[in-house]
Parts: sequence; C-alpha cells; structure tokens
Amino acid sequence: MSDYSYPYRDMEFVLNQVLEFDRHCADLGLDVNAELGNAVLAEAGRLANEVLSPLNKAGDDRGAVLGENGVQETPGFGDAYAAFIENGWGSLVAEEEFGGQGLPVLLGTAVNEIWHSANMAFALCPMLSQGAVEAISQHGSDELKAAYLPKVISGEWTGTMNLTEPNAGSDLAAVAAKAVPQGDHYLITGQKIFITWGDHQMTENIVHLVLARLPDAPAGVKGISLFVVPKFILDGNGEPGERNDVACVSLEHKLGIHGSPTCVMSFGDNGGAIGYLVGEANKGLAYMFTMMNNARQAVGLQGLSISERAYQLALEYSRERIQGRDTDGSPAAIIRHPDVRRMLLTMRSGVEAMRGLAYETGVQNDLAHLSSDAAVRAQAQGRVDLYTPIVKGWMTEFAQELTSLGVQVHGGMGYVEETGAAQFFRDARILPIYEGTTGIQALDLIGRKTSSNGGALLAELLADIDETLTQVRGTAGMEGIAAALDDALQSMTQAREWILQHAAGNLQVMGAASVDMLMAMGYLTGGWMLARSALVAQRMLDAGEGDAQWLQAKILSARFYAAHLLPRVGSHCCSLQQDHDCISSFPDDQF
Amino acid sequence: MSDYSYPYRDMEFVLNQVLEFDRHCADLGLDVNAELGNAVLAEAGRLANEVLSPLNKAGDDRGAVLGENGVQETPGFGDAYAAFIENGWGSLVAEEEFGGQGLPVLLGTAVNEIWHSANMAFALCPMLSQGAVEAISQHGSDELKAAYLPKVISGEWTGTMNLTEPNAGSDLAAVAAKAVPQGDHYLITGQKIFITWGDHQMTENIVHLVLARLPDAPAGVKGISLFVVPKFILDGNGEPGERNDVACVSLEHKLGIHGSPTCVMSFGDNGGAIGYLVGEANKGLAYMFTMMNNARQAVGLQGLSISERAYQLALEYSRERIQGRDTDGSPAAIIRHPDVRRMLLTMRSGVEAMRGLAYETGVQNDLAHLSSDAAVRAQAQGRVDLYTPIVKGWMTEFAQELTSLGVQVHGGMGYVEETGAAQFFRDARILPIYEGTTGIQALDLIGRKTSSNGGALLAELLADIDETLTQVRGTAGMEGIAAALDDALQSMTQAREWILQHAAGNLQVMGAASVDMLMAMGYLTGGWMLARSALVAQRMLDAGEGDAQWLQAKILSARFYAAHLLPRVGSHCCSLQQDHDCISSFPDDQF
Repeated sequence: MSDYSYPYRDMEFVLNQVLEFDRHCADLGLDVNAELGNAVLAEAGRLANEVLSPLNKAGDDRGAVLGENGVQETPGFGDAYAAFIENGWGSLVAEEEFGGQGLPVLLGTAVNEIWHSANMAFALCPMLSQGAVEAISQHGSDELKAAYLPKVISGEWTGTMNLTEPNAGSDLAAVAAKAVPQGDHYLITGQKIFITWGDHQMTENIVHLVLARLPDAPAGVKGISLFVVPKFILDGNGEPGERNDVACVSLEHKLGIHGSPTCVMSFGDNGGAIGYLVGEANKGLAYMFTMMNNARQAVGLQGLSISERAYQLALEYSRERIQGRDTDGSPAAIIRHPDVRRMLLTMRSGVEAMRGLAYETGVQNDLAHLSSDAAVRAQAQGRVDLYTPIVKGWMTEFAQELTSLGVQVHGGMGYVEETGAAQFFRDARILPIYEGTTGIQALDLIGRKTSSNGGALLAELLADIDETLTQVRGTAGMEGIAAALDDALQSMTQAREWILQHAAGNLQVMGAASVDMLMAMGYLTGGWMLARSALVAQRMLDAGEGDAQWLQAKILSARFYAAHLLPRVGSHCCSLQQDHDCISSFPDDQF
Repeated sequence: MSDYSYPYRDMEFVLNQVLEFDRHCADLGLDVNAELGNAVLAEAGRLANEVLSPLNKAGDDRGAVLGENGVQETPGFGDAYAAFIENGWGSLVAEEEFGGQGLPVLLGTAVNEIWHSANMAFALCPMLSQGAVEAISQHGSDELKAAYLPKVISGEWTGTMNLTEPNAGSDLAAVAAKAVPQGDHYLITGQKIFITWGDHQMTENIVHLVLARLPDAPAGVKGISLFVVPKFILDGNGEPGERNDVACVSLEHKLGIHGSPTCVMSFGDNGGAIGYLVGEANKGLAYMFTMMNNARQAVGLQGLSISERAYQLALEYSRERIQGRDTDGSPAAIIRHPDVRRMLLTMRSGVEAMRGLAYETGVQNDLAHLSSDAAVRAQAQGRVDLYTPIVKGWMTEFAQELTSLGVQVHGGMGYVEETGAAQFFRDARILPIYEGTTGIQALDLIGRKTSSNGGALLAELLADIDETLTQVRGTAGMEGIAAALDDALQSMTQAREWILQHAAGNLQVMGAASVDMLMAMGYLTGGWMLARSALVAQRMLDAGEGDAQWLQAKILSARFYAAHLLPRVGSHCCSLQQDHDCISSFPDDQF
C-alpha cells in the first residue's frame, strides 16, 4: 500500500491561480489569504499522511463490529478521530458564533478532498456531522442550536442523517417512522436503514437527525418532520445523561467502505426515543434538503478524492513495474507504454476536471452565503443549485471509471486485494448510490434545474463557458482545446433547446434522457474548468511566472481531456435526443 | 440470491434464426440440427440451474484454501464437477478421435455461456482444460495425445495454463522458468503466478501446460518452449503414479472469483518437475497462442455470461421493488421508472449484442476448422483472428458497465453483499485483465489484425456490415437503426482510413489510439448483430411466424441499442484520431 500525499501543487493551483483565492476572500470581506489557506492544507495533509491514510486499509480489513455496547469502530479510528477534532478540523467552515472558524467553503472543500482521499470511510463521519450542523443552524430553534451546535461543530459529538427506511429509499414520501408529541418533546418510533456511522464509541454522544411523521401529518412528503434524537439525552448541564431509546440493531456487510459502520437503527423499541422537533412540523423535507445538498456536494467530492488516491497508487506502480521494451529497446517501466499513459492521463485529467468543478462549487457556495450583494447571493445560489446534481452525479459516475482504470494499470496485481487498488474500486461503488442515486440527481438536473425560470440557470452557465471558449480561441497552441470545447458546447446548447422543447413536462422523456444529460453536463463543465486552467497556465508562462515544465504539463493535460474525453459530450447529447419511445413502450413482461 | 435460468428463447433465436444453426451444420456436413442443439442447451440449463448456480455464492463466501495436501476447493464443487463430467460436458466440442463429441463450436459457445452465467469461478476449470486440449491436440506428439487427451477431454483430469511469472506478465519474452533435458523428458524449475485452478482435489490428475526455456534457448520470445507437466507422473499403465515436483505454494486473496483458486505454482523445489516437450523446442509462444486464442474467446464470453446473470438479478429486483409512483399515481415497481428502464435496456440490449458477436465468432470457428473449402476456411480463420481481440476486449470492458448497472438498479441494496449484485461486479473485474489485458487486445487489433494484408480483414467486415445496413434501410420501422448504424459505420470506415494512413507503423500513435478503436469496433459489431437480429425478427413477423410481442421486443431492443449505445462509436472514433502528441510528449516526471 502506498501512502497518500496531498497533491498540494495541483490544489493550490486551482485555489490560488484559477479561482483566485485571495481576491475571493477579499471580495467576501474575509481576513483569509492564500498563505493561510496553503498552511491549512499543509496541516491537513500532514494529519492525512501520518494518521488517516495509514488506517485506510485497516478499516477495510477490520470494519466495525456490533457488540453488547453498540458499534465498536475499527481499532485506531477512535484515536484518529480524537486527533482530528483536537486540531479543530471539524469546525473549519462552521459559523464563529457557535465555535466555528468561519473559513470559506472553498478552502473547506479542498481540505475535505484531503480527508476523503486519505480515508473515505473515516471521513464520512465528520462529513455527516457537517450536514447535521447545517440543518440545525439553519432551521433549529435557539435552544436546539445552543444545546447541540457547539458540541457537534467542535466534533465532541457526531451527527447522523436518518432518512432511509426499508420501504422509503429514493422515495421519501413513504417515510413511516412516527413521532408522537409528549410535553416539550416527541416520542420517536420506527426503523431506519443504511445509517452511516449510526453508532460508534468515538464520542460521548451522537446526534441523530431523523425524519418522522406526526400523528396528524398529511400523507406523502408534505407530512414529514425533522427531529433531533440524541443517543444520550442531555442532562440539566447539557451533558450526555440517560441513554435514549435508540440503538443500532445490525450492521450491513458491504462491498466497500468497511471502515464506515452502516447501521440499521431502531428507534423506540422500549416505548419511544425522545426527540426534539427541528423548525416547524411537516417541513422536514425542505430541511432535509439542507443536509442533503451539503452531503451531495460532499459525496461528489469523494468521487474526486478516491480517484486522486487511485491515481497516485497507479502512477507509483507504473513507474516501478518493468514490463516490455521502450522504443529504444531498453526494458521499460510501464509508464512508457502509450496505452498506460492514456489510462494515467485519463485519470489525471479527469481528477483535475473534477477538482476544478468541485472547487468552483465552493466559490459559489461562499458567494451565496457571504456576499454583501443580494443579487450576487441569488445568482450564486442558482449556480450552486445547478452544480449540485452535476457534482454528485457525474463526479461519482466518473470515479467508477477512474478507480477501475486504477485497477487496470496494475494488471493482475490490481485484482489482488493486498495491492490496494481494488479497495478504492470497491469503496467508490457506493458513491453513485448514497445521498440520492445518479438517476435522482439526473432528474433534479433535467427537471427543476433546467426548466425553472425558462432555463435561465443553464443558459447562464453555457454563456460563461462560451466566454472561456472565446479566450481559448485567441490563445496560440490551444486550437485543439478550442475545437473540442466548441463542439461540446454546441452539442449541449442544441440539446438544451431540445430538452426545453421536447422533454420539459414529459416525465417519460425527461426520465429517459436525464442521465445522458447529466453526464454530458459533467464532461462539459469539467472541460470548461480545464480550459480555464490551461488559460491561467499559459498566462503564467507568458509572464515568466512559476515552473514552466509543470505549467506546460497542465496545458497538455487539458489538451488530453479535450481530445479524449470531451467527445463524450456529443455522444451523450446525441443519445439523449433519440428514440425514447423504445424505452417507454417496451412491454414490462418482455424484459 | 436469485437462481439463474438459461435464457433459452434468446439463445435459440440467435442460434437458430439469426445464425441458422440447421443450415450451418448441414453446410459443414455435421449430423446435428436445431432440435438436438436445443435439447443440449436444455440439459446444460438444467445442470446449471440445479447444481452450478446454487454453488455460486458458496464459492464467493468460502473460496478454496491451501492445506497440507494442496488446494481444497470450495465444498460442493467436487461433486458438481463429477456431475459435470459424468454428463460429458467436458468433451462437447472435442475431436471424436480422442473421445470428444465433435459438436460444433457454435453450440459449444452457447453451452459455455450457460456455465459462466451459472458459476464463472467453477466454469474456469473446464474452460482451461479446453485450452490444454487444443494445445496438445494441435501441437503434441502422438504419444502425448494418446497419454493425455482422452483423460483431459473426458474431464477425468483437468488442464491448466502456466504462463505468467512475477516478471513476465503481458511480456512473455521475460519468461525465466528453466527446462533441462534428461533422457526422454525435461526437468522444469521456476515459479509461475496467477495460475487459475492450479491445484484442487476434484480429479486424480492435473495436466499443467508450462512455458519454460531450454538451456541453449535464444533470448526473448523465440526461446520459449511448451511443456506438459502432470501433477502425478503417469505409470506404465498411463495412470497417475508418483507425485511430480510441482506444488501450489500460495493462493491469492482476490477481489472476486473466490471460488476459483488462483495459485502460485512452484516447479522443481526438489530437483525439477518432470515435463514433456510439446511439439518443437523454442516454438512455445506460437503453441501458447493456440491455448490463448481459445481462452480469449472464452473470457470474452464470460463478459456476456456475467452480464446476463447480473441482468436477470437486476430485472427480478426491478419488478419486486416498489418505490415512487407510476404516471397514474399508483405505487410503482421501479421497472416503471424511465431511468431504470434505460438501465435495464442497456443491460439487455448489451447482452444481446455480445451474444450475437460471440455466437457469430463460433460460426466462424466452425467454418475455419470444418469447412471442406480451403478458401472458406482461410476466410473464416481471418474473421476469427479479427473477432478475437474484439470479443475479449470489448465484451469484458462492456461487462464492467453492465454489471455495475446491475448494482445500480438495486440502489443501496446493491452495495450489500448478500444481494449478490456486488459479486457479479467483483467477479467481472478480472475479465479485462486475464488472458491478455484490454491494452494487449487493442494492440493486436490495431496492429496485426488491421494492417495485415493492406487492411483487408477489416475492410471485409465493414463491407458485411454495409450489406446489413442496406437491408435495414429498406425495412419499414427501422429508420432509426439505419441512421445510427450508418453514422457508426461511416465513423469507423473513416477511422480505418486514418489508422492505415497515420497510425500503422507508428507505435506511439497505435498504442494511444488502440483502445478507442477496440471499443468502437465492439459497439459497431454489436450493433451490426442487433440489426441482423431485428431484420430476422421483422421477417418472422411479416411471415406470421413466432410470438409477435416477443419479436417486437427484439426490434425495440435493437432500436434502443442503436439510439443509445451506437453513438459511442462516433465518440471513440473521434478520440482515436486526435492529439496523440499530448500523450507521448507528457513528461514522465510531471504525471
């Protein structure tokens, strides 16, 4: 197993050069700059390298176990978690009012990339806490905030999301868990499944955010409420006291992320778990989306992180493994073979494209929350809304291909578990499923996000891409990038028209065309970010700044993506407009 | 876990209607017809359903273990193997002279599809025996044939392929195992890795085919010889006698196919394993390709088989799982959701396309070996040569996507091992690696197979596809298929020209463009087979033959493939012609 090294040059290039971190922070009135940002990344990189990454294989080999006292996490994870919160990593982007450090989401995104690369199973725990923090801070009462936020922000307690039930997966309208009012609280009963880090021994308390129905609630999604259900009920001093009536009753035996306990949680086996309503009754679905949108962006980021990790491992092997001959007849490391280079460049440029898009989403998140200009906030929120399904859907699907290439570069050794490439491949497979499947993301994108406001959100993004294209067209040496981006943009522009005309409102056609649209948008926006990256690299080269060979490689990587990955946009755009009738009219009993 | 049911209607349709099994057998002078063929499939289907398929999960859960007496296979596999050979399944396509049944390879291909669907880890064992039979029967002396063929053909003994060494994987020039002559035999020493079914207790003997070097052998691939090394040396009566100096010294811990022991084999730890030269010295590489080409087609077939199995499981779940609402507002099985239908149709039409291509390769194999006309034999052999890397490369890569969709259809349940979808996904991951990686197949295709004879092999295939296109163009209701096939064929025709002009002879460009070419050819030939399938279905409909709804579904499936998978040909053809310079000139130290 190789160690993970955080790719500081690549990360800093996107943050500081492409997305102009200094200007970004200054615009938002934040007292943060690139120097601080780089230092934060370096500290995160150190913890990742020394503590989290070495436990990644242990988590795979010895996942959590369920015993009499609940779930016991992988040995070593508890100490790692203590180190993690001791260094304040849980509170990085949280509001200062409740003990957070108020750093920009853009920087938080980069830091989170590091955690998920180092140990995705571990990092799921603080990731879900972050969702809980968002839900409570945006929708909870002052009492709830005061009681729970500081401890969850500091990481002393962790948070979970309890949404799914055996009969309510993608369709939350079917949630059946019950909440009966009793004095100042509610009694929650029901079973939740697939609860990530639903139980463990790493902290003194766990704060479950739970969807349930009040007795008089309307049917469907309009009757879902959100509750805080602590594992230990808080005593008069706000400290964990009596055990609440909630427990993990079994753990799933999964394909991957073994280090992350996936729990079946039972609420109210002994009369009812004490829970506290978040916000208003029957508005749980909207509140849930606060957590969910946060988590969706985070899961998309996991796609980037696990692909980066897989790339590092494959690259190391490709430099060491001697097989066959170089063009001059000498024994060659396999990195010399053109098809291995093609695989490595697919991984590398794919990771760069995803990083660009994930960090750009971080920029828009900051603007949406922190800009002093309401119009900027609204515009940025629209962009976040549009990016979210692309980040979640495309980046996790793309991660399937890239982690699979990580196995392939290793040849037979890739299939042997000890090598480690297979773990990344297995771990990655959950990503297009949890926090809303690719199909759910795609429906969100082609539905609300594409058609709302006459398709303005998408039109504005395509206009931004066109602006970049204009710059690329005028830059010597980037003819290939310009041509490929032009083709892709034209395909998507035309597909957008088609969707607005033929798909909008027709659920059959939208559903059938949705994933192709999602993938097309992913490859296109990724290509856009790489074109921006190439432009910045070229400007620096022209100005004599930076490491010339390194900057040239950035441009080569963008050229590779343009030539070898952007053509997929056309193929997806072609498919999405064709023959939906064969899908809808195929007789069910003939499948 | 669902059971496997062999898809007899689909299989018989391709065999009997599309590929005209009766005419095929009559042309070859074989006393075999569709009635017999269907009966053979039914018997195989029964054994698969009753014996092999129920052991598939057991093999995954409890793989083979290495003990003092060598490798002990998964409990139950021994009895299953006994039932397998008792019914004569090992000898189906082998020559009658040595106890084989001489049935056409076309039928054998269909039967093998069943074994690999039912239990791929198990079926690897007879699959490799088949390769050993081919190598000995085509290149062995009469003595070797007499001593080994009847027992391996009957399945009383199994065969293995011992090629790979720690430093000799894709590059067999590096083979270092030694063979020193001693009387009528050789003493073999060396270590071989990744030896599938290298040891087990299911049979009284195991016949290893081993690549090694004679003391005076030239360096590189021209100095490799092929040896038969039995686990037990034959006594005077040709029965297994003394233990030979060969043993499994460890087993790999793999991502999948746990039921198939992957052995590190050590030859000559106690002085040397007794081996017998196959054919002439130093011609081992050519002989090895006899086994290898057989195995490559068989591995391609595994891609089809595992995808079919994954499809059956996903389909069953999609009919049972209720989630969300149908268009009329009633609770819907997820098969009603357009994106789930898209996934299922991708799997279904993909499987059909692969089946068409695999069986068509069976037809050409039969013609190459059994036709009385030398010109036909030569032409068919050329076609087999061309198909082999496509079958091996494309069908195994496509199987990655289709088994992954099998997981995706299940949502969160797909990630839980008990469901079974994850096993198919893990098992499938070996396919693009063993028996020559996708990169190796692609180089074979773009190199020798494309450029030999001025590119005639490929030109002839494209001409055949064009002929089908002409028929499709004239058929009402197939306008979409015609348009998509036309686009794909034009893309490939143009890409072929480009390859002959710009890639041939340039190793850098060939290597970089090769996998895109392979994938384009795969999707194209698959689309061709589905177009042929649709034409046959339409002819039957016009003639009032068969089950109309079922035949209509065949046409819908071909339409789906044309609209939603054939566009990938254009994307791959575009990529393969673009910017190889960024791949070759990317500095190694900047990756």
